Amino acid sequence: MVIVMKPGTEEDQVRRVMGRIEAAGLKTALVQGQGRLLIGVIGDKQMIATLPVEVLDGVEKVLPVTDSYKLASRQFRPDPTVIDVGGVKIGGGQLVIMAGPCAVESREQLFEAAAIARDGGAEFLRGGAYKPRTSPYSFQGLERQGLEYLAEARELTGLKIITEVTDVTSVDVVAEYADILQVGARNMQNFQLLRAVGRAGRPVMLKRGIAATISEWLHAAEYILNEGNYEVLLCERGIRTFEEYTRNTLDLSAVSALKQLSHLPVIVDPSHGTGRWRLVKPMAMAAVAAGADGLMIEMHPNPAVALSDGPQSLDPVNFREVMKAVRGLAAYMRSADDVVNA
Amino acid sequence: MVIVMKPGTEEDQVRRVMGRIEAAGLKTALVQGQGRLLIGVIGDKQMIATLPVEVLDGVEKVLPVTDSYKLASRQFRPDPTVIDVGGVKIGGGQLVIMAGPCAVESREQLFEAAAIARDGGAEFLRGGAYKPRTSPYSFQGLERQGLEYLAEARELTGLKIITEVTDVTSVDVVAEYADILQVGARNMQNFQLLRAVGRAGRPVMLKRGIAATISEWLHAAEYILNEGNYEVLLCERGIRTFEEYTRNTLDLSAVSALKQLSHLPVIVDPSHGTGRWRLVKPMAMAAVAAGADGLMIEMHPNPAVALSDGPQSLDPVNFREVMKAVRGLAAYMRSADDVVNA
Amino acid sequence: MVIVMKPGTEEDQVRRVMGRIEAAGLKTALVQGQGRLLIGVIGDKQMIATLPVEVLDGVEKVLPVTDSYKLASRQFRPDPTVIDVGGVKIGGGQLVIMAGPCAVESREQLFEAAAIARDGGAEFLRGGAYKPRTSPYSFQGLERQGLEYLAEARELTGLKIITEVTDVTSVDVVAEYADILQVGARNMQNFQLLRAVGRAGRPVMLKRGIAATISEWLHAAEYILNEGNYEVLLCERGIRTFEEYTRNTLDLSAVSALKQLSHLPVIVDPSHGTGRWRLVKPMAMAAVAAGADGLMIEMHPNPAVALSDGPQSLDPVNFREVMKAVRGLAAYMRSADDVVNA
Amino acid sequence: MVIVMKPGTEEDQVRRVMGRIEAAGLKTALVQGQGRLLIGVIGDKQMIATLPVEVLDGVEKVLPVTDSYKLASRQFRPDPTVIDVGGVKIGGGQLVIMAGPCAVESREQLFEAAAIARDGGAEFLRGGAYKPRTSPYSFQGLERQGLEYLAEARELTGLKIITEVTDVTSVDVVAEYADILQVGARNMQNFQLLRAVGRAGRPVMLKRGIAATISEWLHAAEYILNEGNYEVLLCERGIRTFEEYTRNTLDLSAVSALKQLSHLPVIVDPSHGTGRWRLVKPMAMAAVAAGADGLMIEMHPNPAVALSDGPQSLDPVNFREVMKAVRGLAAYMRSADDVVNA
Repeated sequence: MVIVMKPGTEEDQVRRVMGRIEAAGLKTALVQGQGRLLIGVIGDKQMIATLPVEVLDGVEKVLPVTDSYKLASRQFRPDPTVIDVGGVKIGGGQLVIMAGPCAVESREQLFEAAAIARDGGAEFLRGGAYKPRTSPYSFQGLERQGLEYLAEARELTGLKIITEVTDVTSVDVVAEYADILQVGARNMQNFQLLRAVGRAGRPVMLKRGIAATISEWLHAAEYILNEGNYEVLLCERGIRTFEEYTRNTLDLSAVSALKQLSHLPVIVDPSHGTGRWRLVKPMAMAAVAAGADGLMIEMHPNPAVALSDGPQSLDPVNFREVMKAVRGLAAYMRSADDVVNA
Repeated sequence: MVIVMKPGTEEDQVRRVMGRIEAAGLKTALVQGQGRLLIGVIGDKQMIATLPVEVLDGVEKVLPVTDSYKLASRQFRPDPTVIDVGGVKIGGGQLVIMAGPCAVESREQLFEAAAIARDGGAEFLRGGAYKPRTSPYSFQGLERQGLEYLAEARELTGLKIITEVTDVTSVDVVAEYADILQVGARNMQNFQLLRAVGRAGRPVMLKRGIAATISEWLHAAEYILNEGNYEVLLCERGIRTFEEYTRNTLDLSAVSALKQLSHLPVIVDPSHGTGRWRLVKPMAMAAVAAGADGLMIEMHPNPAVALSDGPQSLDPVNFREVMKAVRGLAAYMRSADDVVNA
Repeated sequence: MVIVMKPGTEEDQVRRVMGRIEAAGLKTALVQGQGRLLIGVIGDKQMIATLPVEVLDGVEKVLPVTDSYKLASRQFRPDPTVIDVGGVKIGGGQLVIMAGPCAVESREQLFEAAAIARDGGAEFLRGGAYKPRTSPYSFQGLERQGLEYLAEARELTGLKIITEVTDVTSVDVVAEYADILQVGARNMQNFQLLRAVGRAGRPVMLKRGIAATISEWLHAAEYILNEGNYEVLLCERGIRTFEEYTRNTLDLSAVSALKQLSHLPVIVDPSHGTGRWRLVKPMAMAAVAAGADGLMIEMHPNPAVALSDGPQSLDPVNFREVMKAVRGLAAYMRSADDVVNA
Repeated sequence: MVIVMKPGTEEDQVRRVMGRIEAAGLKTALVQGQGRLLIGVIGDKQMIATLPVEVLDGVEKVLPVTDSYKLASRQFRPDPTVIDVGGVKIGGGQLVIMAGPCAVESREQLFEAAAIARDGGAEFLRGGAYKPRTSPYSFQGLERQGLEYLAEARELTGLKIITEVTDVTSVDVVAEYADILQVGARNMQNFQLLRAVGRAGRPVMLKRGIAATISEWLHAAEYILNEGNYEVLLCERGIRTFEEYTRNTLDLSAVSALKQLSHLPVIVDPSHGTGRWRLVKPMAMAAVAAGADGLMIEMHPNPAVALSDGPQSLDPVNFREVMKAVRGLAAYMRSADDVVNA
């Protein structure tokens, strides 16, 4: 942290500010500019983060030097984290596909979707049993019944299961059924939930909040890692901007930024990220080219009857076309000398 | 809902779209433009919201006509809701002040703050016992101990208590101590929590999510109202924008927008809304002039030692000055012929 | 500027960075942290701003310490600037009102509007002769003819004239007719235009760009001041956010922020700021309470036939009501001990 | 346009609204819902756009059905526009590369950059002679001298030239030297400039404004097309969001959205789009995979001494690596069955 003092601050005040910081066990260093003094603060960054120096007399502003997440950082673990989910490796250079409907609507719908996902070459079946919805009057999910259908679909197809957990009281039951627990965008800063999934003994996929900075997102991941669970995937799913044509603005630069800042694998969800099925294929391709470790794609046996998020779901024909395209591109990316993450 | 068909769509496809909607028990009406057909959809708006018509062949786009919240709307209840909290009325034309520290840090700090709040003329003492924090390494609150200090402070000062509840498992304990339950910005779409506070038997103050539209905010309120709890206050606390000088951008136009769209009382938090204590007074004044029913203000006996949010907290001297100014303005607003909400 | 070096940077690299900065005639100071080195850079801030240190080997990031505008800053001129426009003083504690239609549509429309503005107590008549419009097919203004109508209206009513200049080629002609030149939001960073109005010999009102930070806005003002024209007014007119209910989000915290950062007078435009005439009165009141020096309000003799921006224009009856309310509030604010800008 | 009437509006008012619209020569159609009336408006969309129906009594809101740009739309011209610049075809399936420094700084710097661009396989040399800068104290460009260096560099290397024109007074001189005129983000809605470049007899590359929606951008292009100049390229260069890690948020979904809405070629600028040279390669790859027709890349012989935008410029070694990677990917994309725009 660097403290910028107001122009013309007297020596006395500067000493008081430095004294206050040193009293907290940190070191200071004074830099004299042209009528402007800077104080560098040195020491444990978690402790620095708690100091309310902005309100001390004479302080004009405070510049943070480092982020306070640690376990999620590339410095902490220089090599990429590879998560092994029953033999499927995420983060190790192979593109992983998670596909399926937004919501589990019925046994038939799910099984049909699962067959299409498997035939298309996906490794994971996605599908919400617990659905967070903006309006209380929208379809809210089949809950435990949905989890059971997911488990049955796994039996039938061999696909792994990823599904969302929406509150602390259902972490245990979801962890009983799912291979990966998903924390949704609206819950990215539901810290009790983050702690709970950190103790659930399952890998966790943490979606980015619609207004979360990359730094806040990594801090949220830190809550999970801090409970001892290092199997965390980050999922970019679009941020909220002024643009109205797309439901969200998919921030693909976050993929490569995360690769530089963190060791955790990064998944991209072009379905929620755009809200338009016609944009899913080009954005899936772009995500692969940007270095994503996997894709989460909404697919529905019949989008026109979907109970939620129909407009962004691929139908089976389009799904197969996207799968073929992204697998081809992923193979090309690996074979090229100039791979993105080289 | 109005459905815009693509140019040149054939009659067959149009009929299929209309048939699909009518099969759901809704009515349709066809409007013929210049080579462009529109289909009006008529019926229950909650049912309309669930139709995935965007993915039907021939559909170009869908224009929603009405929002799907109902209990929170001004149409549902034309007169303003007045909430009576042990004799303090919120929403009835008197300005209500909620003041206190961001976090309950100690018995002494809280009691000192409570005395200042009471002497300044506040009706409510605020203070977080459970603190949601971006970083897991920041101070997280005194939890139950903090609630007990709050209850003691109520005994001593006669102030009512408002404090945040951060997850479903602590709703009961917080409801035991607090007069109003606060749901924070990060939890605005934590739907399980909304349902839980809807059944807790206490008034609820719902803060706006940092990236929530007014419509999403009213839908979130609808979750609470839908559980039978009609005592809901809305608190504007700034939204996230590109501007970096302020911590958030306080959206005061939301105050008057809410007054027109809803019957629920509106509180403004200029402390979080700006993140700078020097902006608290002008924004508090502006909020009163815009028609707010109350203010939530961070005040700390000694901001320079605060464990969280020091830079936006008023010290006791500034707090008294703000209180005097806003009370004077509120009295003027009531006396003037041309009151804002007339 | 403070330079944060990467962890583990070698002494050699640090010396090279410092050498490069010193070669530009600036001073450096080294601060040693825990495995992390900071370099403070001291000297002329305009020169510092041009240094591309981010790309030097070993540099992790650069923290700017001060903004590079100077003439617009409060440090440069500690007292508020008061602009005298033919006897009407702006910035001296009296609320100034600029009212009129979005566009000059005809002689009759303008004269009718001028009479209503004068009778309501405005000091300035606004009205666009040159209209920048999103679509090339929308009404683009009467141009020189419109300027002549404005001058005639000034003769008839005694009101001063403020009107927009949209490009360098029409600065002279607009300056011939107008008392204040307005630079619109879309042109806030049209630097040639800023320089041209800086030499036009007229006060200039600079509207905030829809995505401009306060810092960028003050830098844009600096272009005008730098040409020797110190009579600059800043006009907050809403920024672009994700909220869709209002056309823009009126950022009233910018009013008090500008009062602290700069000496220039601040005008608020609640009409463009909200895009809804029903929100104009509450936001005009809020602006006055926040300390604005003036208001720019769209009013039309008959909004339902306006050729542009009808939905946000007040009709004559509502205009009179708003005028009465804001004048009353301004008088109260001056009389109260606790004035906002005291 | 569809007009939503307020609940309970009387027949009289509805007739008045319809009468007003029909008086403008448009047709109306009434749709009766449950206590809610909708009026469909049919006719010329440019005329519809000028109607101020929101302010008519009884009108609740207005839903636009179609955008009012026409010449830029895919409906107007179903096949992609291919622009031939002295034999280099843009939009015809080949990836075009525009590379060079942000600003022309000197003859030597530019010639060195030009040689690197040519050797790397670029078709265009970019470089600003007129530089719009946030601060009046930053380097503003070599102006006409810079144009002459660009022309010399073209002679030497055979590269085509693209350079920015910042105001109407310099359109002619820039058009004399450049092969493509660039309109920068800050000038996207400088309508006089758009008209001027529409008459300049050169292809124009229109960069997206930092807060411009896709619709506004296409409307801006419409200004140029409307002057008879159909050789317009659109350049995505990032939008302003709350994210601070990147300078802007590169919106790659806009690439495919534009391909669906318009026939104009789309270029992507990953340098300004991210503001970090380490993100240029992954975002360039992603842009190609998303279907971009070309890339604009900042490259500097020695970024550490660049007078502007150093941190986002590639050095010669990285530039060659990026060129090799994107050319390889472009070749793969063409060869694959599953091309993005198929």
